[in-house]
Amino acid sequence: MNYKRKNVENIKIAYIGGGSRGWAWTLMSELALAEDISGEVYLYDIDFEAAKNNEIIGNRIRNVNGCKSVWEYKAVKTIGEALINADFVIISILPATFKEMESDVHTPEEYGIYQAVGDTVGPGGYIRALRAVPMFEEIALAVKEYCPNAWVINYTNPMTICVKALYNAFPEIKAFGCCHEVFGTQILMKKMLEEDLGYQNVDRSDIKVNVVGVNHFTWLTSAYYKGMDLFPEYKKFADKNYNEGINCDFGGHLNDCFTCFHRVKFDLFKRYGYIAAAGDRHLAEFCPGDWYLKSPEQVEEWKFGLTSVEWRWNDLKERLAKSERLISGEEEFVIKETGEEGVEQIRALLGLRNLTTNVNLPNVGQIPNLPLGAVVETNAVFSDDSMRPVMAGDIPKEIYPLISRVCGNQEIIAEATKTRNLQLAFSAFVNDPLVRLPLNKAKELFNKMIEKTSEYLKEYKC
Amino acid sequence: MNYKRKNVENIKIAYIGGGSRGWAWTLMSELALAEDISGEVYLYDIDFEAAKNNEIIGNRIRNVNGCKSVWEYKAVKTIGEALINADFVIISILPATFKEMESDVHTPEEYGIYQAVGDTVGPGGYIRALRAVPMFEEIALAVKEYCPNAWVINYTNPMTICVKALYNAFPEIKAFGCCHEVFGTQILMKKMLEEDLGYQNVDRSDIKVNVVGVNHFTWLTSAYYKGMDLFPEYKKFADKNYNEGINCDFGGHLNDCFTCFHRVKFDLFKRYGYIAAAGDRHLAEFCPGDWYLKSPEQVEEWKFGLTSVEWRWNDLKERLAKSERLISGEEEFVIKETGEEGVEQIRALLGLRNLTTNVNLPNVGQIPNLPLGAVVETNAVFSDDSMRPVMAGDIPKEIYPLISRVCGNQEIIAEATKTRNLQLAFSAFVNDPLVRLPLNKAKELFNKMIEKTSEYLKEYKC
Amino acid sequence: MNYKRKNVENIKIAYIGGGSRGWAWTLMSELALAEDISGEVYLYDIDFEAAKNNEIIGNRIRNVNGCKSVWEYKAVKTIGEALINADFVIISILPATFKEMESDVHTPEEYGIYQAVGDTVGPGGYIRALRAVPMFEEIALAVKEYCPNAWVINYTNPMTICVKALYNAFPEIKAFGCCHEVFGTQILMKKMLEEDLGYQNVDRSDIKVNVVGVNHFTWLTSAYYKGMDLFPEYKKFADKNYNEGINCDFGGHLNDCFTCFHRVKFDLFKRYGYIAAAGDRHLAEFCPGDWYLKSPEQVEEWKFGLTSVEWRWNDLKERLAKSERLISGEEEFVIKETGEEGVEQIRALLGLRNLTTNVNLPNVGQIPNLPLGAVVETNAVFSDDSMRPVMAGDIPKEIYPLISRVCGNQEIIAEATKTRNLQLAFSAFVNDPLVRLPLNKAKELFNKMIEKTSEYLKEYKC
Amino acid sequence: MNYKRKNVENIKIAYIGGGSRGWAWTLMSELALAEDISGEVYLYDIDFEAAKNNEIIGNRIRNVNGCKSVWEYKAVKTIGEALINADFVIISILPATFKEMESDVHTPEEYGIYQAVGDTVGPGGYIRALRAVPMFEEIALAVKEYCPNAWVINYTNPMTICVKALYNAFPEIKAFGCCHEVFGTQILMKKMLEEDLGYQNVDRSDIKVNVVGVNHFTWLTSAYYKGMDLFPEYKKFADKNYNEGINCDFGGHLNDCFTCFHRVKFDLFKRYGYIAAAGDRHLAEFCPGDWYLKSPEQVEEWKFGLTSVEWRWNDLKERLAKSERLISGEEEFVIKETGEEGVEQIRALLGLRNLTTNVNLPNVGQIPNLPLGAVVETNAVFSDDSMRPVMAGDIPKEIYPLISRVCGNQEIIAEATKTRNLQLAFSAFVNDPLVRLPLNKAKELFNKMIEKTSEYLKEYKC
Repeated sequence: MNYKRKNVENIKIAYIGGGSRGWAWTLMSELALAEDISGEVYLYDIDFEAAKNNEIIGNRIRNVNGCKSVWEYKAVKTIGEALINADFVIISILPATFKEMESDVHTPEEYGIYQAVGDTVGPGGYIRALRAVPMFEEIALAVKEYCPNAWVINYTNPMTICVKALYNAFPEIKAFGCCHEVFGTQILMKKMLEEDLGYQNVDRSDIKVNVVGVNHFTWLTSAYYKGMDLFPEYKKFADKNYNEGINCDFGGHLNDCFTCFHRVKFDLFKRYGYIAAAGDRHLAEFCPGDWYLKSPEQVEEWKFGLTSVEWRWNDLKERLAKSERLISGEEEFVIKETGEEGVEQIRALLGLRNLTTNVNLPNVGQIPNLPLGAVVETNAVFSDDSMRPVMAGDIPKEIYPLISRVCGNQEIIAEATKTRNLQLAFSAFVNDPLVRLPLNKAKELFNKMIEKTSEYLKEYKC
Repeated sequence: MNYKRKNVENIKIAYIGGGSRGWAWTLMSELALAEDISGEVYLYDIDFEAAKNNEIIGNRIRNVNGCKSVWEYKAVKTIGEALINADFVIISILPATFKEMESDVHTPEEYGIYQAVGDTVGPGGYIRALRAVPMFEEIALAVKEYCPNAWVINYTNPMTICVKALYNAFPEIKAFGCCHEVFGTQILMKKMLEEDLGYQNVDRSDIKVNVVGVNHFTWLTSAYYKGMDLFPEYKKFADKNYNEGINCDFGGHLNDCFTCFHRVKFDLFKRYGYIAAAGDRHLAEFCPGDWYLKSPEQVEEWKFGLTSVEWRWNDLKERLAKSERLISGEEEFVIKETGEEGVEQIRALLGLRNLTTNVNLPNVGQIPNLPLGAVVETNAVFSDDSMRPVMAGDIPKEIYPLISRVCGNQEIIAEATKTRNLQLAFSAFVNDPLVRLPLNKAKELFNKMIEKTSEYLKEYKC
Repeated sequence: MNYKRKNVENIKIAYIGGGSRGWAWTLMSELALAEDISGEVYLYDIDFEAAKNNEIIGNRIRNVNGCKSVWEYKAVKTIGEALINADFVIISILPATFKEMESDVHTPEEYGIYQAVGDTVGPGGYIRALRAVPMFEEIALAVKEYCPNAWVINYTNPMTICVKALYNAFPEIKAFGCCHEVFGTQILMKKMLEEDLGYQNVDRSDIKVNVVGVNHFTWLTSAYYKGMDLFPEYKKFADKNYNEGINCDFGGHLNDCFTCFHRVKFDLFKRYGYIAAAGDRHLAEFCPGDWYLKSPEQVEEWKFGLTSVEWRWNDLKERLAKSERLISGEEEFVIKETGEEGVEQIRALLGLRNLTTNVNLPNVGQIPNLPLGAVVETNAVFSDDSMRPVMAGDIPKEIYPLISRVCGNQEIIAEATKTRNLQLAFSAFVNDPLVRLPLNKAKELFNKMIEKTSEYLKEYKC
Repeated sequence: MNYKRKNVENIKIAYIGGGSRGWAWTLMSELALAEDISGEVYLYDIDFEAAKNNEIIGNRIRNVNGCKSVWEYKAVKTIGEALINADFVIISILPATFKEMESDVHTPEEYGIYQAVGDTVGPGGYIRALRAVPMFEEIALAVKEYCPNAWVINYTNPMTICVKALYNAFPEIKAFGCCHEVFGTQILMKKMLEEDLGYQNVDRSDIKVNVVGVNHFTWLTSAYYKGMDLFPEYKKFADKNYNEGINCDFGGHLNDCFTCFHRVKFDLFKRYGYIAAAGDRHLAEFCPGDWYLKSPEQVEEWKFGLTSVEWRWNDLKERLAKSERLISGEEEFVIKETGEEGVEQIRALLGLRNLTTNVNLPNVGQIPNLPLGAVVETNAVFSDDSMRPVMAGDIPKEIYPLISRVCGNQEIIAEATKTRNLQLAFSAFVNDPLVRLPLNKAKELFNKMIEKTSEYLKEYKC
């Protein structure tokens, strides 16, 4: 890295999972727009061809209209080549394949357990965690070996457990987890400000929020816009839209939020008086299973959707086709603002701007009433080679029971994955709010799911 | 109080709820057997006649065979007379009447919510708390006025919230809550030692346990008997008796544990590997409602019982009859060891013995991963005018989600009762593991229950 | 307050101690330069004439060249008029007069105790605290009555104890303490960067630091400039300048830092490896008395100065003369950047900019190994109606003994002032690192100092 | 180990430092009196002859009048033989020889630093710690290998750092540090009760105290005897005896408390209102050096003594002579109650009695306002294979600055020894209350002391 007066050159970014046809393109867009930084992006993926394709796509961007910054993309065959001397590491991988995800999401349905996403908590999230943690430990150890001072940004789910695994394997790692779900709620409030309160061109980042909770079950304990407390307004807004919901997608970029009418969000607000700040699909998975996910019919009533893995297959097919078009030149890469913050975080860590935003980090006291060491989501201050959480304060009394429960459950899974202990993992599984089965049935389901993904769990013991 | 070489005379005990036909008689028995202490017991009750009856009964005991210690019983008409200069205060009251309790226990059944006891958590426990807290605040303020240095022992449910109310109203109060449920589990292990392992005459107090949790949802994280770790033995014991359960009542005294086959206890052990240490009826109420309390049929399967208020009416009738017989002399008071520890705690606080036993106290760090200030149950060391909790350690990972949830929920109720805030109380109500209703149904039930007990809730606001 | 698209009008600021001839003028300068905010400043002072003079001076500024923002200044006779509906409150008062300060600073010299400032800790600081706290309690209660939602900025010493008193009297107060001493150390590093390392026009605010400690005994645990870790450079810099020191005043504004050669700072760095970040005069007062303040000769060796109260009298005389010239128009008010941050904090609290800077606040965990509730200095994030401390982390092992000692001692004084308890205050007095007297001598000095300021201590009891 | 109905046989005790001519004989006496336990004591010492001598002495005891319990003593040549399958491990070693101790105690005198003991804190304590820690790490690792479930009792100084080293090297170790200094203060209060208040035959263990602090700088925050608060009495007692002191040795056993008139103890009580509970010689070493240890004359005034190493040589000579007499049979071993508690702790850990007493353990929250993990001294509850600290509560405000300072300083040394880092050790050295030297002088002394003991510090780096 070389600091010039106002910019930084020769930055090395390592992208683990660099064959991605989603986040990778988002990053390319954002980097192309960041005129005060430049350098190289090393793409590493177990599917080398995919990485190679992205190398081609990435290196074409410098010729695209609107490109303000030149980056060199290089696909590499080993993780060491990608990491050696990297300044930043981005992790965005799929733990195993859609085949395993199919089991994660759909096997529980045989037992009456419906999951809207199935990659964070619930039976699917936990089994996915069992697969993901050994991979993340391997990455963390490689970071320790090749670039111990690099900043590591994770986008992979289950976020909480993946970030914990990085810290478990290499405690000095400078890692954090990055998720856009809170932004979606800010955009909902932007809609409220513009449509109900007459403001114009509200900038999402001017809606100042205090964030507490765990990833995908984050809550706002305060929200201000230009000196105005948004809670009383949100109360009216939630009341007004409670029955029908309101369609406000968090679009404009590659997202996984899909259609959502925020009815779950409003219901939680009416119960507890705080603003749940993630997509309804995610929020529902952290609540007792009979609240929002009892049956497909109930899900429909709440106006969110169950993301089937079939949908994911189809979506991937489209993205593969797009990839081919980008490579062949049939389609031109479109540089656009994506609403994502990864590049802004990088700029802030380089000392090029000030930034306070929400990230996932081990709790060192930023949320005093959650366990120390558990990965939590709060605001953090990014500055020159430094990132420190802001004191977010206690989880409010009203929602502490909900959050401590799921935070604690993920702590069990984290320990179970670290020690490769299926018995312990089952303690979390049977405790999950979505799993309302008798012991023997829960065990049966657990075993069935383990069986289907056993190829990835060879190190685990009962 | 006067200290003699080996005993203490002229102790003054104030008994709030002194008309009781249960705990009062237990206390009388225990006091009669405590040869190194003597003094007066002031009985105060809103039903003065009941207290007067106990005065007669109590004063007869000195002539009963086996009485080793003379105590003077006096019924008084004001709480001030009872408390003034008291050395010890015992609280054992019924918050309102069986009429209100009937609503607590049975109204939720109309919504498919079954409670085995209904006096601790769940809809019944919370509504009972709303009534109890103002009473406990009044008692705490009277203690502050009349006997600020007295030791205050509470037996009333909901234990956790009542003890919290005492400390909220008078933070310097020397109060603790006392409950025998853990003893019942020690007695179960005594049975195991004697029947399965060939030991003879096992003394319950030789089974050394470490206690964590909240009242009625207490757990043992270790158990030893004569150098032997009891956990491996308990595992075999739980496996063997899992299907049929084992009948082991905690008898020998006036108890409310009733028939219990410990199947819930064994199920929880198999789920988490720790020993739940309370009667199954209580344990079940802290778990998600579909585990053990989904329906009367499910309860029957688990082999515990739902205590109807009708049963309580009948039981009271019998105790009233017994009271009359004791007063008339038709029946003689039987002095016996009850297995309760109140008097031993008093003796330890007087410096007459060493005692380490489990009590309910605000968390000052004895359980580091539960919120500070929340009332928790752990061992404490009793000595000369001193009682200090033992560092019980963190709630184990496996059961932290279960316990933090119900601990947090009781913290909401504590705050709601303190601030007389029904809106906040509803946040806890709708969060309770037994309440699996949609928001509008939950609200309907809450309002109905509030309505039925409104006479006692005049200070509360929505 | 009215929010416009890009600015805020009709802000009301209350200035307690508004007759000040130092900070008041600094504020006027800064406000005149803040083009996106405007409103009124109410000046309240027990010396009404002084406030009136500042009203005249302040209202002239709008005609001065370079004034970008119009503010109305009004002297008022009651604190209520100043505070009612204020948006911001600034406190900058002198607790009593220079006569009392003379005793604070010079009476201990009779016992061989030398103080460089005498307003923070040491005998002088503690006795000053005894006078200041009742005044701060009064202010806090007035804020509670007249403007409970206002942001309150304190500049008065002893900072730590004054901020604590505000929170003790009105726990919901939105107050913080603001001090420029850390900036001085950043300016020293700017000098290092420019003179030793060849950088040009280093901007102080680009030197990113993590701050821990208590006011006037603040330490940096990290410092970065454009991706460069400044600690290795500072080590060379401290070694090079250890013997002679380096003259680097923190000038350009009304300051009380005076000549300082940073030898104490370098000595502390060589002892512990962390950068002490306050003027040497302040740092020395927190260390054992024989390190830097044993005698005037030793002070001279370390190349800092003892600020006599005589000097203060003379300085005041000059400032009074200047005040007269400003009023009469003989001298024109000069608007200039002062290096102070108060107005930037105000702008950030209005949502007009992002700001992370160091302030004094009760510890809610931002420094986990100092007592909760003790006032500590760390960075905080200012945003729209919100200010939250950044997790600064533990005080490093090496300096924990020094800092915990003086932090704890100020906690005693805080409690002693709150309860008006001279006996307790003496416990801190006799514990102070500068007070190395036998018990009877310490008591004699304490009593003598109390006597000399007794007019202000009427509520205190032995 | 075999449990019988009322006793335990075949216990194996390993004694590291088993050639001791002090503690070893105390243990032999106490074991001979413990009629419900029996077994073997393995004596391991780097001086095998010394261990062999103790084997002979120990095995003779069974024939001595008054012996109630038969123990087999065996000297062994390797630590492994001693530890393999041990139930209890006792550590009482001298880290290096009196030659090194001579430097510890007397080299600082050349710089005007006087130490009364020189084995705990101060220059001597710290340098001793540098030698001791590698030895303790070795012992801990041997325990891990040979008897990981054994209870480990340490008597060696510096207690705090030695116990910390055991836990650092083997975190699961069941170790605690045992010290009789608190008993001495109970005996002083016994004297007060008997001589001033007319009680007879006061039993030390009936004086119930709450203990906080670090070893040799322990404080009582409460003390009761038969329902009487002893603090008001102690106040009178301290006032009355402040000037002359009172001679009350803690005799009757092998002690190192020597003559002590408790003047330091009374001075500290008058300063802070809490009872310092260790010998004055120890207490003085934790206070700023000019309070009690400025010069030999000042020490004399305070009526305690400086223990020269010459005295220790002479004392050892006498004990060696006694050893020879015991071996030859010229002198018969006298079995007597020693006032020490080690054997009672063993019995309690075997489940044979209840015991609550003060020990040294890592802080898990028993003193909330000292750092977690620092070794602190508080009461703990001993029961069947379990020892848990009692919640001792916060260090009182008045003495927090004194204690946090020395606790923190020992934490530095612990880290410095663990990482073999002399630079870090010097940070603690120069911070010590007794070391009031300028940086260069402190460094000179440090280097000189390191040099003199360099043979034992080969692993350390600057």
